[in-house]
Amino acid sequence: MNVVGLDVGGANIKVAFIESEQTPPLTIRTVNVFFPLWIKGKKNLKHAVQDAVLKIVKNRKVDVVGVTMTAEVSDVYFTKEEGVNHVLDCVQRIFSSTPIFVLDVEGNLLPVEEARRKPYKVASANWMATGWLVSRFTVNSMVVDVGSTTTDVIPIVNHQVVVRGKTDLERLAYDELIYTGILRTNLSTITNIVPIGKKFVRVSSEFFASTGDVHLVLGNLKKEEYTTETADGRGKSKREAMARIARIVCADLKMLDEKKIKKISRFIYVRQIKQVAEALKNVYNRTHKTPKKELSIVVTGIGKKILAEKAAKEAGFRNIVDIEKLTKLKISENTPAAALTLMVLNRLERGKNLWMQS
Amino acid sequence: MNVVGLDVGGANIKVAFIESEQTPPLTIRTVNVFFPLWIKGKKNLKHAVQDAVLKIVKNRKVDVVGVTMTAEVSDVYFTKEEGVNHVLDCVQRIFSSTPIFVLDVEGNLLPVEEARRKPYKVASANWMATGWLVSRFTVNSMVVDVGSTTTDVIPIVNHQVVVRGKTDLERLAYDELIYTGILRTNLSTITNIVPIGKKFVRVSSEFFASTGDVHLVLGNLKKEEYTTETADGRGKSKREAMARIARIVCADLKMLDEKKIKKISRFIYVRQIKQVAEALKNVYNRTHKTPKKELSIVVTGIGKKILAEKAAKEAGFRNIVDIEKLTKLKISENTPAAALTLMVLNRLERGKNLWMQS
Repeated sequence: MNVVGLDVGGANIKVAFIESEQTPPLTIRTVNVFFPLWIKGKKNLKHAVQDAVLKIVKNRKVDVVGVTMTAEVSDVYFTKEEGVNHVLDCVQRIFSSTPIFVLDVEGNLLPVEEARRKPYKVASANWMATGWLVSRFTVNSMVVDVGSTTTDVIPIVNHQVVVRGKTDLERLAYDELIYTGILRTNLSTITNIVPIGKKFVRVSSEFFASTGDVHLVLGNLKKEEYTTETADGRGKSKREAMARIARIVCADLKMLDEKKIKKISRFIYVRQIKQVAEALKNVYNRTHKTPKKELSIVVTGIGKKILAEKAAKEAGFRNIVDIEKLTKLKISENTPAAALTLMVLNRLERGKNLWMQS
Repeated sequence: MNVVGLDVGGANIKVAFIESEQTPPLTIRTVNVFFPLWIKGKKNLKHAVQDAVLKIVKNRKVDVVGVTMTAEVSDVYFTKEEGVNHVLDCVQRIFSSTPIFVLDVEGNLLPVEEARRKPYKVASANWMATGWLVSRFTVNSMVVDVGSTTTDVIPIVNHQVVVRGKTDLERLAYDELIYTGILRTNLSTITNIVPIGKKFVRVSSEFFASTGDVHLVLGNLKKEEYTTETADGRGKSKREAMARIARIVCADLKMLDEKKIKKISRFIYVRQIKQVAEALKNVYNRTHKTPKKELSIVVTGIGKKILAEKAAKEAGFRNIVDIEKLTKLKISENTPAAALTLMVLNRLERGKNLWMQS
């Protein structure tokens, strides 16, 4: 059976594709396309999703499609309901004669018509696919998925996803969604002050620089890994990134040298680590009985090394597990889409569980 | 003598025009044009400035032009030097046969060629015009100018502007520039959490809503006073503003009612007041010997009532003076441009000081 998993975000479209009858070891093909919906416009969404699908599916047949999304949060939609319906419209137009299942926040796979009746249940449910996958592999754990824009924290106890929040609003309230990521986050939302010399200086509240700039300057990211837009539309050289960072204190490269900009960058990086670490501690304290040093912290996402792992260590955890080692699947950069293909497969080929033997 | 004062910002172009030989009482005509440079592009700046000038000057003659700017901070320019030169290019092309003076951060009026040699001296000097004007009217005071985007704090002692910082970077370091305003400020730069029910909820780090939305919802602003762009490009009805505010916690109007959104708005408003109040206290403590309850706090800018005055009271000041009462001039919404016309006049017609007798 050939399954497509779609994770349609407001900034990135992620697609995974699995052919369950292929010769082991099982592999999942994935692709990410940067598609800033608020810039490109909703009228272009269908085409962009279709292009992304074609990139990995090519001319192979597709038996079933799983869909999840976060694009409905985007302000191109007035309500989430409008967003959910539009994403589903796009997917139905692309796969007009293929069965489609929509993930909800309880972990159910709903037919499209049911999903349309429960837009608030299928909105931003993508973390549930990740949680489900990791819950198959670990008894007690906590997943930390750090993406370009946001970080998901998903506690698992006795092979069950035991989140306190289901909607984004609830997850923000319960430290299970931290709106910080390693590429797109506006630096001015991370801190109000930065150190320059011996002073702390207030920062601008414009969108002058993003976390991608900080991680590029610190060597945490290569230029090619900085896949999203820059704040000023300029390039991704270190010099351009430093100029953007200088601008957050209304300065430029003639006023601040590399040493000063690196100091600002390290300060922001530490703040970001602490922000995620604090959330991890809160979720852990509320949820887990396993001692901190034993509990598996399963890290994934493009920020798994530079932010998820660092935050877990900052929070006192010691048993950090890479999701790719855990699952033997290359799925870090598209975990929800990939997990969704497995969820669909598991539902339709229950008992076979081919993918868990690989 | 007819003087044009130009204050070319990155989001607003402000023009003032004075005819010193007109029949008293002296009036200054002013106009503000919302011109988001990073959206409209630098190639359109000259035309926009010209249009704004024509709106108030009409077919009257112009004898001299004073220029100040903050547009050079915009990220359409790679360095401030590039920005300063481009703004001066535009002004010179508009006024090709009129004397032009450029304000610097020391309060000097420089010929254009000298200004081009000292770009870091003329960058973001507009607060100096305001400080100079108020220093003519008060012995000891502190000016608080709250605009759409930023807030200037300018201490005056013995009729002298006694700021600690001159460049924006220094002013940010010394609490004399607070990058918060009543229209354009991204709410996620003001707070990381907002109250909903009895919980505090983390906020998104996108640019989903701005202070204009908060002040509109709270009744601090009328729709017509919300002159800048909205975060989502939608309109300025209360309902649209509430939807934007709901989105900062990834919610919509079906999830949060008006009561909840007003609670969030009040929380952010209080944060903003405290942010400015803290800066006022710091500048006061460093600078003034006049007792807090006596020192004149001169408020101006579109946010003079809703933010400057509130912050001054929050900081313990009691002697709040509206700049329009102090100067008998209607200049709140364009103080630096208006003050600059008077500065130029004072320099060229020294001794006459017509405008101070009015």
